[in-house]
Formats: sequence, structure tokens, C-alpha cells
Amino acid sequence: MDFAPSERGLMWRERLSRFIEAHVVPAEAEYRAQVHANPKVQAPVMEALKAKAKDAGLWNMFLPGEHGAGLTNLEYAPLAELMGRRLWSAEVFNCNAPDTGNMEVLHMYGDAAQQERWLKPLMAGEIRSAFLMTEPEVASSDATNIQTSIVRDGDHYVVNGRKWWSTNMAHPNVAMTIVMGKTDPDAATHQQQSQIIVPVDTPGFRVERMLSVFGYDEAPIGHAEVVLENVRVPVENLIAGEGRGFEIAQGRLGPGRIHHCMRVIGAAERSLELMVERLLTRTAFRKTLAEHSVWEQRVAEARTNIEMCRLLVLKAAWMMDEVGAKNAKSEIAQIKTAAPKMALQVIDDAIQAFGGAGVSGDTPLAELYATVRTLRIADGPDEVHNRTIARLEYAKHGGLRR
Amino acid sequence: MDFAPSERGLMWRERLSRFIEAHVVPAEAEYRAQVHANPKVQAPVMEALKAKAKDAGLWNMFLPGEHGAGLTNLEYAPLAELMGRRLWSAEVFNCNAPDTGNMEVLHMYGDAAQQERWLKPLMAGEIRSAFLMTEPEVASSDATNIQTSIVRDGDHYVVNGRKWWSTNMAHPNVAMTIVMGKTDPDAATHQQQSQIIVPVDTPGFRVERMLSVFGYDEAPIGHAEVVLENVRVPVENLIAGEGRGFEIAQGRLGPGRIHHCMRVIGAAERSLELMVERLLTRTAFRKTLAEHSVWEQRVAEARTNIEMCRLLVLKAAWMMDEVGAKNAKSEIAQIKTAAPKMALQVIDDAIQAFGGAGVSGDTPLAELYATVRTLRIADGPDEVHNRTIARLEYAKHGGLRR
Amino acid sequence: MDFAPSERGLMWRERLSRFIEAHVVPAEAEYRAQVHANPKVQAPVMEALKAKAKDAGLWNMFLPGEHGAGLTNLEYAPLAELMGRRLWSAEVFNCNAPDTGNMEVLHMYGDAAQQERWLKPLMAGEIRSAFLMTEPEVASSDATNIQTSIVRDGDHYVVNGRKWWSTNMAHPNVAMTIVMGKTDPDAATHQQQSQIIVPVDTPGFRVERMLSVFGYDEAPIGHAEVVLENVRVPVENLIAGEGRGFEIAQGRLGPGRIHHCMRVIGAAERSLELMVERLLTRTAFRKTLAEHSVWEQRVAEARTNIEMCRLLVLKAAWMMDEVGAKNAKSEIAQIKTAAPKMALQVIDDAIQAFGGAGVSGDTPLAELYATVRTLRIADGPDEVHNRTIARLEYAKHGGLRR
Amino acid sequence: MDFAPSERGLMWRERLSRFIEAHVVPAEAEYRAQVHANPKVQAPVMEALKAKAKDAGLWNMFLPGEHGAGLTNLEYAPLAELMGRRLWSAEVFNCNAPDTGNMEVLHMYGDAAQQERWLKPLMAGEIRSAFLMTEPEVASSDATNIQTSIVRDGDHYVVNGRKWWSTNMAHPNVAMTIVMGKTDPDAATHQQQSQIIVPVDTPGFRVERMLSVFGYDEAPIGHAEVVLENVRVPVENLIAGEGRGFEIAQGRLGPGRIHHCMRVIGAAERSLELMVERLLTRTAFRKTLAEHSVWEQRVAEARTNIEMCRLLVLKAAWMMDEVGAKNAKSEIAQIKTAAPKMALQVIDDAIQAFGGAGVSGDTPLAELYATVRTLRIADGPDEVHNRTIARLEYAKHGGLRR
Repeated sequence: MDFAPSERGLMWRERLSRFIEAHVVPAEAEYRAQVHANPKVQAPVMEALKAKAKDAGLWNMFLPGEHGAGLTNLEYAPLAELMGRRLWSAEVFNCNAPDTGNMEVLHMYGDAAQQERWLKPLMAGEIRSAFLMTEPEVASSDATNIQTSIVRDGDHYVVNGRKWWSTNMAHPNVAMTIVMGKTDPDAATHQQQSQIIVPVDTPGFRVERMLSVFGYDEAPIGHAEVVLENVRVPVENLIAGEGRGFEIAQGRLGPGRIHHCMRVIGAAERSLELMVERLLTRTAFRKTLAEHSVWEQRVAEARTNIEMCRLLVLKAAWMMDEVGAKNAKSEIAQIKTAAPKMALQVIDDAIQAFGGAGVSGDTPLAELYATVRTLRIADGPDEVHNRTIARLEYAKHGGLRR
Repeated sequence: MDFAPSERGLMWRERLSRFIEAHVVPAEAEYRAQVHANPKVQAPVMEALKAKAKDAGLWNMFLPGEHGAGLTNLEYAPLAELMGRRLWSAEVFNCNAPDTGNMEVLHMYGDAAQQERWLKPLMAGEIRSAFLMTEPEVASSDATNIQTSIVRDGDHYVVNGRKWWSTNMAHPNVAMTIVMGKTDPDAATHQQQSQIIVPVDTPGFRVERMLSVFGYDEAPIGHAEVVLENVRVPVENLIAGEGRGFEIAQGRLGPGRIHHCMRVIGAAERSLELMVERLLTRTAFRKTLAEHSVWEQRVAEARTNIEMCRLLVLKAAWMMDEVGAKNAKSEIAQIKTAAPKMALQVIDDAIQAFGGAGVSGDTPLAELYATVRTLRIADGPDEVHNRTIARLEYAKHGGLRR
Repeated sequence: MDFAPSERGLMWRERLSRFIEAHVVPAEAEYRAQVHANPKVQAPVMEALKAKAKDAGLWNMFLPGEHGAGLTNLEYAPLAELMGRRLWSAEVFNCNAPDTGNMEVLHMYGDAAQQERWLKPLMAGEIRSAFLMTEPEVASSDATNIQTSIVRDGDHYVVNGRKWWSTNMAHPNVAMTIVMGKTDPDAATHQQQSQIIVPVDTPGFRVERMLSVFGYDEAPIGHAEVVLENVRVPVENLIAGEGRGFEIAQGRLGPGRIHHCMRVIGAAERSLELMVERLLTRTAFRKTLAEHSVWEQRVAEARTNIEMCRLLVLKAAWMMDEVGAKNAKSEIAQIKTAAPKMALQVIDDAIQAFGGAGVSGDTPLAELYATVRTLRIADGPDEVHNRTIARLEYAKHGGLRR
Repeated sequence: MDFAPSERGLMWRERLSRFIEAHVVPAEAEYRAQVHANPKVQAPVMEALKAKAKDAGLWNMFLPGEHGAGLTNLEYAPLAELMGRRLWSAEVFNCNAPDTGNMEVLHMYGDAAQQERWLKPLMAGEIRSAFLMTEPEVASSDATNIQTSIVRDGDHYVVNGRKWWSTNMAHPNVAMTIVMGKTDPDAATHQQQSQIIVPVDTPGFRVERMLSVFGYDEAPIGHAEVVLENVRVPVENLIAGEGRGFEIAQGRLGPGRIHHCMRVIGAAERSLELMVERLLTRTAFRKTLAEHSVWEQRVAEARTNIEMCRLLVLKAAWMMDEVGAKNAKSEIAQIKTAAPKMALQVIDDAIQAFGGAGVSGDTPLAELYATVRTLRIADGPDEVHNRTIARLEYAKHGGLRR
């Protein structure tokens, strides 16, 4: 286990950090104001930042190989943590979910035409995309429950279904989606499903409504409930062939989960910083809050727990690099549950330190809490990941005996 | 400790419960739609419900003595719990904070003219009011920190200050506020402050902005940041005399805290019901969620903790009735911290049971979480109440020794 | 719910409290010394205290009706709490488990001869007894798992089996046991078992070894593993008839669990007192521990949680009095899990306040912790009681649906 | 951060693991039996194991440089974890506390005569030693509170004081102690103290009593309360010179704390293994416990938390190697609090899985719990370490402002 950053990793981190301090932090207020003023058009400041980031070569760093920065997961981790300090900033570097996952899928499974038509503009940051997997009617934590149908009809596939938590659907630039559905309900469990590209302007594709997260609309990104009614797309839009949907989904989830966790560490770190600043400057009962020893315990636990989670993220990333996502299954599940749980406690303590300012929009804390809370549910609830971890543990001792 | 409901108490509970089932529950969707459509005018369905409640005699039940239902705190508790199942419904019965506290203050400390001018329309539900105490610049948990000034100038007082978390300020019917401020910064600590009536249309009184709670605006009620700049009100608006502000504030907080806790029990109870319904009907891995034993533990803890908190609320209410708020200081502080903490856990577990629906607007859970989270801060953060409890405990053994 | 102590209840409490202060507290050190010096003989000071208690009429208070003090469960609760402050003191008043449960069983189900032979000396405090139910080989939380066999052979029953956690078996005065076993493994599930009296000097009855609890032997009481090998007892020793074992067991568990919980409240209350005394007198970093605010939070939570648990015990006791143990099933399960959990936290915090003295024999805390920890396992583990509570909750909404 | 085991590290781990499986595990029962039969003589099987370990070169591995195995802290960590699976086994390899700390002190600060007289037999495993620091009268977490006096009198020092938690004092081979005390109460705070060698047979040196940990005597090691009454030792016994006691104490605590934590990880790992074995084989309600999903959550959290703590131990060890204990102050404090807290939860869950067997001597769990619980107190309570961590955090933001 060598978590030492490579020289290349250090260099990237340094560059990204400098860029964020120089360009992102100063633009934060303006960006929020523009989004607030009109969430339906792309904020001009975001486009300006993207241009600068691209110029600086800080672009698509998440993507392995020559198309991105060629970073390992371990090298990318500290970059994701930096972006996690301001979750909106990932888009500046074209590193935001779910576009990252969609790009990975097209990169690995798309054919030349699909890559030309969709991957290219995504990589260029010209369009945004969504991933339509979760369905409101079923426990989607069990991917085999998916009910959306994808039926071949001549040169087309006809898609019918209802999806929700389709992130990015409010984005002014959203142009395409990747939809998961069943091409053959009678096939073996893990061969029933396929993934298919559906442009958002296809007839029958309808955003039914936008969902809130606690009271936030998470503009400009947004999460939608989408109805697909006899949506016809050419057969060329199918990715990698019928029946490979589950395989593709598995492939995307490993790095995706890790990226979320990396960002969560950054969010927790920033919350701790805000909390400490508050404790050192706010006075009650003739002492700063920092001098009330209950806060020593909370600050110390925050620091300790952040450290432990960061190390576990690094280990999971390192294992993905060294032995592949499949062999890092337990570690990925561990960090998927541990990081949000840790961060929620840190953020909640920070909220308490700020009092009224903590629950309002005067600090980023309440919105962070809401966002991180969804991560105990998204991509499978904690309970399902814990089940995975436990069963791997049981397997070491012979497994469940029936 | 006799927590048995009196016959009168049982009768009121039965009447209120029937009214809610018959009128409030069916109107919920319409009420939300009207508020959503135009939060700036009072929802017509609310006025209709208020008229019905008044007709049914289910009105001002919070107020002791002949002006209300003449109920004890112990008798009122189960009524508040019923209203807590839908927090918006308290207004139907003219039993919503902070109007209730303001009415109590005017009832106990207001003179005849103040009662005629303000208490009467409040009691009739014709106007709404706010209580302006907390200030953004200082730790208001220590009431002596208040910086707003109230300076006599001939026949007027001139008020200058900045307040926030002024609940009700977005309400279409809001007409007056009670403002806490210092009339004599040089007096003894607890004689420095006064409370004064300030109508919202007084020149210099300005709503600077509305505050969000985890993204919610809590329409139609709202929480405001208010600036008072050379606001002049006649000396007749002062309540009870200069220097009595702290005394009045203490008096209002006892019942107010208890009312909040009672409603929180109702909110937790409803969350548990929603969670159980979900667990019994949602299937994952070929079993209902209810059959996964981890949920047995959570449901059982929810039931157990709700029961314990309810008993503690009843005890605190009973003590306030029997020995007065002052002698129930520890019990009031205990339930002030215990009820929200308990409810947050129940609601959070319910959110987890619902998955995506839990964090969105499809269940009342996320908004409930946000509202209840503020109760660990409002009217003094947990840490300050725990300090009170601990010091009373220390006092039993001789107190802190310096 | 009227938890107000009756005049009679108050009087008993007052009398018991005075007796404990006058006689039990001063004798504690001597009692411990005598037990330590020779755990195999009854401590003379215990016999002296018992004589005094009997003289004072403070005897068998647990037993309802004319044979005891005729107290309700609600009236008995505060008495059990007082005894819980020093767990060893229950024997002084002939109110210690498992003798209390055995006396109840013989009182309710024993015939005249059994009562004359065994109940009388138990009531007189002349002998002690054990209850042999739990078995090492099976999850005894499911009572139907019991494997011990009771086979009729002419005028005798022959008992074979292995039991453990047979409390009291080290007591110098132990004379008899009540054994649970199967008389008919082919009967309906709840008619398979019976209870039978087995004197400890019956041939084939053998104490295999004594069990420790976190290193404590819990002298002079002790918990044994007992082997019964072809143990023959006359048919007259069977209690109430074949097949009624499960029914009798259920009957004994309700009050027994409540008694344990009542005592646990007393133990927690005493631990809090010890903690507070320590915090007020121990100095670190130039302040008493009490002045370090982290302890304010812990003391306040201890007080709050003790209050809530006490109220829940009272409610469960009141319900047993009013509607019977069967209808108080959820409440009994609730307090069975809540009280030990609460007490363990209070005791653990007290240990932390005492440092090295807390884990050693210099305070009663470590032994208390060990004893209370067993209560999360004894008479069914938390998980099983939570299952009961949850299923009653599910039943309110139609129950599990298959 | 390179936590990858070096080739040398891997080789040592492999050798130690093979030795433990071949010799230690098979001897466990015999060792316990011999200690139980006569705790006052060294168990012959221990001496036999020591001889084998020495032969195998698995000896004094804790000691850096040529005298030990020359391992880094990072390399030693996995070895300590292996020994932590059976805490008694550390003595087999001459790697048990507090002898390890004493040897380090003599190694670094002892002069040639002291090393010849005491270090040599300690390194050979011929004698055992104790470290007398903590005092019953004062909060020893603040080392400046120490009251024991060391007064020069001609060619001797006269030591007076009372110490407790002097580990090893029951060991049949204990021969010497290192005592911390004040040589100059008027010197600057951190120059007041010295450390001096006191053989246990010096007149005036008296073991007043042995302390229990929960109910365990922790034989054969034992923790004593020791009285030193006019104990005279030659001036040559002073270590490193007057006034250097605090410096020496600081030096010994870094590695010592880390070693404890490493062993705790091993103890937690073994507890998890025992728990999983139990869950897979115990049946309740017609399913193995492992199939009840509440256990999935607990097993998964145990695995996750062990992983995170292990990584934090490795990081702290690595930092001690790379930048020294002083610069790893926060990390050492973090793991000092995190590891026992984590392990206590794992052990407690394992106890619950075992039921009655868990609290008794039938599993190692209850004794492990007791031992690990002391680690939240020994070498400074959690609260003091958290204070350290928090203040380092505050310092990053300018520190406490007065």
C-alpha cells in the first residue's frame, strides 16, 4: 500500500489548487448570483471558468488514458477532494457526475460513431448528459428490478418506462441520456438489460417534474422524474450490444462511487475549517466557543474521522488501480458507507456551531448536509452495501450455510 | 404524577381528532397547492378551515383561563401532539407559534389598550405577529447579549437594531411584532431590557431578506432578517414597563418550549407510521423491508424512544401546572433537548426507508427533518440547556466550588 | 396514566429509605468483607440485616396480595429502585431474583404441599433457590428450543439436561431449583414443556462449574452451569401439570423484567451521583472536571435519560397493574431494552470520570457495568425484544404481508 | 505515505505468523491452566515458548537498531497486531508492555552500568519490570501533577510516594521498576521531574494491594498500588540526570501508545472473526444469526471501522518513522482515542452475538473488553488527547485568541 503521491500527482494537485484559489474561489459569489437570477441558461461565468480551465490543461482529469490526464485513481483522489470543497466547481473541470460516468461508458463501450456524435462534445464540455437508471416504482438497489423496456422494432428500439433522480436534467446544456432498461426479460438475470443512448429531444421523452433534495432544487443541475413513452431511437444507439447493461452499470459504479467519496472528504474538510473559524471567533458566556471543552471533543473526532476516511478512500483507490474494482468490492462498499456517515456528523456539528446561520443559506453547510444525505441512498442504500461487506466477510469463514 | 387525561382532556382530544380527520386531512393537498401558487396571499382554504374550527369551538386552546379553552398544560399536550402531525395545521386552531407566545405575553403583561388593539385581533385570528428577539451578530442564547436599543424620546421610543429568525414575517396577515431591546444598558443585567410593540408598517421597519431552512422558505410563514432604523413608536407600546423584558421573555419560553416538544412528538409519531407503512409494502431481495431484521431494531427503538419522550413531555407539562415553570426548569430543558434529538433519528430512519422519496417532496419527511433540526438551535442550543441541567444537578451536591 | 405514588406507596418508600440509610449503608463494607473472606458461608451480617428487615416489616414486598406487602407493581417500583442502588441489598428484604420469581411461581401455580415444603422457607428467607431455564447449546431466547427432557417413570420424573446461568447456585443457602424441560416434544409448540422442582441434593444433580461475568464471580450468588443426569424426583414435584411450562415461564417474566429494570434505574441514579461528586472534586488543568463543558453534556444526558427511563418503567408497571402483562407486552419489551442501554452509558461515563478508580474495585462502577451488561442478554437479548416491539407496531398497520 | 510492507517487513510477519500458529496457539490452553493453577510462579510453558522464540530469532522486535530486529514502526505494526490477537503472547517475544517502554528508556537514556545491570537481563527476558508513574491522588493525565518526591541525601536518593496501576507487579519475575518523581518542585514545570531505577526488593518499597480491572486480576501480570516509604537507592540509579523525567516520559509514550493501538487492532480483528464464526453457526427463529440482517450491518461496520483504524495506525507509525513522534502528535493522539473506541464496539457486538458465553470466560471477549476499556484511560484519558488534537486544529487557524 503505497499512498505516497507520485511526483506527477503532486504536480497536478499543486496546479489544480492554484487554479481554484486564483479563479474558482473569487467567482463563487458571481456564479451563485447568475444561477439564482436565471437557472435556465448556463451561467456565463461558468463558461468563462471552463475556458480558463481548458486552457490551463485542467480538463477531464478523471478520465484514464490519453484522453484525460492519464491519472490513476490514487492520483485523482486528491484532485477530487479539492473539487469537493465546492461541489459546483467540478463542472469547471468537466469532472462532474454523471457526465464523468457517461463519458467513461462511451469511452469503454461506445463505438466510433457514438464516440464521435456524443463523447466528443461531452469531452469538450459543450453538452451535458444524464444517466437514467433508478425507477420510482421499485427498489432499484437491486438492479435486476428495473422495469423500463427496450424493444426492438425494425431499425429502432422503442423505450418505455419511468425514471427518476435523473441528475443534470435541469441543466441548460443537457442534450443526451443513457437509459438502462430490459431488452430481454426472459434472459438470465444479468443478461436481461441493455443501455441505450436517448437524446433529450426525442419525441415521447418527457421531464415530468423536478425533484427537490430537502428544499433545494440543486440548480442548475437538478434531478428529474422522466417519462419515456414509445420513445424511438435508431438501433445504432444501443451501447455494446443487447444484454450488456448490467455489466456496463457495474463498470461505471466503481470509480463513480470513489469519486463521490473523494469529494465528500473535501466537503467534510471544508466544514471542519468553517467550524473551527466559528469556534475561535464566537463568544458565549465570556469565552470563545473553542474554550468550551465540549467543542474540543467534537473537533478532535472530526479530525480523526476525516483522517481515517481519507485513508480508506486512498486504499480503495489504490486497490482499484492495482487489482481492479472487482477485487476492491469490499473496500469500495466500505468507503461508500463510511464517508457520507462521517461527513454528515462533521457537517451537523458545524451547523450546531453556527446556530441559525448553519441551517440557512449563510453558510454552505445546510445544502451540503442535504447533498451528502442523499449519498446514503444513491447508488444503493447503506444497508445493501453493508450486506455486501458482511457477505464477503462470511465468505472468508465458509459463507452462509443452508 | 398523574398523567391520566381528565375527562375534559379526553373530550377535547376526541373533538380535535375528529375535526382533523374530517376537515384538515382532506384539505392538506389543496392548502399546499394554494400556498405554492401564491405564498403572498393567505390561502383561502386556511381561512375556511379557521372559520370551521372557530365554529366548532376548537380555537385558542393553548391559552389558559377563560379566554382560551381553560386547559392545563397537561391537557393541552395531546392536542398539540395531534397538531404536530401536520405542523401547518396549528394555524387552523389559532395555536401556532409565535402568535401563541405573543398572545400569552399580551394576555399576562399587556394593558387594556394593548389588549384591545392587538390581542383581540390576534385572538380572532385576523392578524398574525412576530417576535423579534434573536440577533445575527451575537450569541443570543445568552439573552443579555441583545444589542437592539430602545431609547425614549419624548412621547416615543426609538428602536434601532437588527433581528433575524423572525418567524411569521412572510405571512400575508402579519401586522405587528414584539421587539426585545435594551432601554438601559447600564442597569443590572436582567433589568436592561424591555419589550415593545412595533407594527410592521412603522417607518424604518424593514424586512431585509427571508432566510431559508435547509432550502425551504417555510411558506407561508417564513423567517426574516429585519432591520429597525430609527423606528418610532408611541410610549404606550411598551409592554409592562421599562426593564421587564427579560422577565417577560422567561415567562413566554416555558410553555413555548413545551408546545414545540409536544408537536415534535406528533411529528415523530407520524414519521414512524409512514416508515412502517413503507416497510410493509416495499420489497427488496424477495422480502418486504419489514422482514429484514435491521428494520425491526430501528422501528423498536423509534417506538421506545417516542414513548419515553412523550412521558417526559407529560411530566414537564404536569410540573408546570403543579409547581410552575421555574421549578420545572430542569424538566423543561430536558425535554427541549431530548424531543428533537429523538425525532431527528426517527425521521432520518424513515427517510432511509423511503430512499429517494424520503429526501424529496414526495413525503413530508425531509421538510420535517429541516424544521426539527432548527429546534436544536432555536430558543437556545442544546449545549446551553444541557449546561442548565448539569448545573442543577451539581447544585444538589453543593454546586461548583471555586 | 396516574403515576402518582399512593399514600401507601409513599409510606413504604419512606420506611424502606430510612431502613437502608440506617442499617444497609453502614453495613456495606462489613458485608463485602465477610463475603470476600468466605463466600461459601452466608455472611452473618446479612442474616442480621434480614432479621432487622423482617422485624421492620420490610419483607417480601415484591409479592402481591396478603403474603407480601400487597403492593401494586407501580407501588413496588420505587422500592425496587432504592434496592437497585446497592444490588446486594435486595436479599436483605427477601426481594432478590431469582427467588422472587420462584416464589411467585409457587404462589400462583404451586399446590399446598409444594407451598408448605418450599414456598414457606423461601418466604421466610431460610433457603435460596435457582431457576434452571437457559441452556448452553441452543439460542434460549426462543423458549421452544429447550432440550432438557422430563420423562415420567412410574411415580417419578427423570430429568436429563444441561443448564447454565443458573443464578444463586453458589449461595450457601441454596436448596432447590425449578427446572424447565420438555415432557412432550411431540405436543403443540407451547404445550411441550413443564416446570418441575428439583432439590439441589438430588442424586445426578451436579454443578459443573461456576461462570464469571467480566471476571466477577458475583459471590455469594454466582451463576452455574448445571448438569442433570438421570435426576429422579417424585411426580409431586411437577408444577401445575404437564405442558404448562411455557405458560408459567411467560407469567414469571413480566414482573421479573420490570423488577430488573427498576433496580437498573436505581443503579444508574447512584452512578450519576458518584460521577457528579467526582466531577465537583477532581481537578485537571486548573479547573474542576465539572467546569469542563464536555461533562455538562454528559451529566445532562444522564439526567434526561434516567428520567425518561424511569417514566417508562412506571408506565409499564402501571399497565401491568391495570391491563395485565399480556397487554403491556410492548411496554415491557421497551423498558427491558431501554433501561440497561441507558444505564450502561451512564455507568461508562462515570467510569471515565473516575479514571483508574472507575475500572477497579474502588468504586462499584465496573461491577455494575458487568452486571447491567448481562441484562442486554438475559431473559432474551435486545434483538428479540425489539423484534417483539416491531411486530406489534407492524400489526397496527396490518402486519407482515406474505 | 507509503504503507507498503517492505520485503523485510513481510518476511518478519510471515515468520511471526508461522511461529504463532505452530507454537503459541496450541499452547494457549496449557498456559492459562498453569497461570490459573499458580499465578505466583512463572508458567513453565511461557518459559518454553520464550526459549523457542529466542531460538527462532523472534525476540525484542520492538526495539529499533541493532539490539532488536532493527524494524521501523511501520514494519513493527503488523507484528504487534499479530501479538494483539492474544494479548498474553507478547511476553513470548519479549515485546510486552511496560517492559518494552522500560527497555527503550534504558536503551536511550541509561548509562553503561544501568544497561549492564538492568537492560541486559530485561532484553534476555530473565526479569520483568514496572513503570511507576500514575498516582491515585491526582489527575495524572497532567504529568506535572506528580507528587512523589525524589530527594538527594548524600550518595543516595530517597523516594517517597504512592503509585498505582503499576503493571507487571504481580509477575513472578518482576525485579525492578522505573519511578517518576520530583527532584526539584521549584524548577520550571517540565524540569521538576526525574526517573530513577528502584529494585522491588529495596526496603520501604511495598506493594499495598493489587487492583482489579472489572473483575480480572490480569494474572500473571497484575496492576499494583505501590507505596514507597523512605526508599533509598544509590545516586547511580538516576536515569540521565535530574530534571529529565518529563522528557524521558514523553519519549516513551509515543511508541508505547502506538504499540497498544496496534495490538488493539489485532484484538478487534480476532473478535470479528469469533463473531462471524458464531453468526454462521448459531440458529434462532429457524435461521442462522448471519441471516438476520441486523448482523450484516454490525459485521460490515466492524470490518469498515477496523480497516480505517488500521490505516490510521499505519499512518501514525509511518509518520513517527519519517518525521518523529513530536510531529506526529496529532496522529498519535487520534489513534490513541480511535482504536480502543472502535475495538470496544466490535467486542461488544461480538459479546452480544455470543450471549451468555460472551460475558463469561468461555470466550476471550469479556476480558478483552475490560482490558481495552482501560486504554481509554491509561496514558491519558480520551478527553485530554482530544484536547490536544483540537488545539492543534485551532493552531492552524491562529489558535485560541484571548
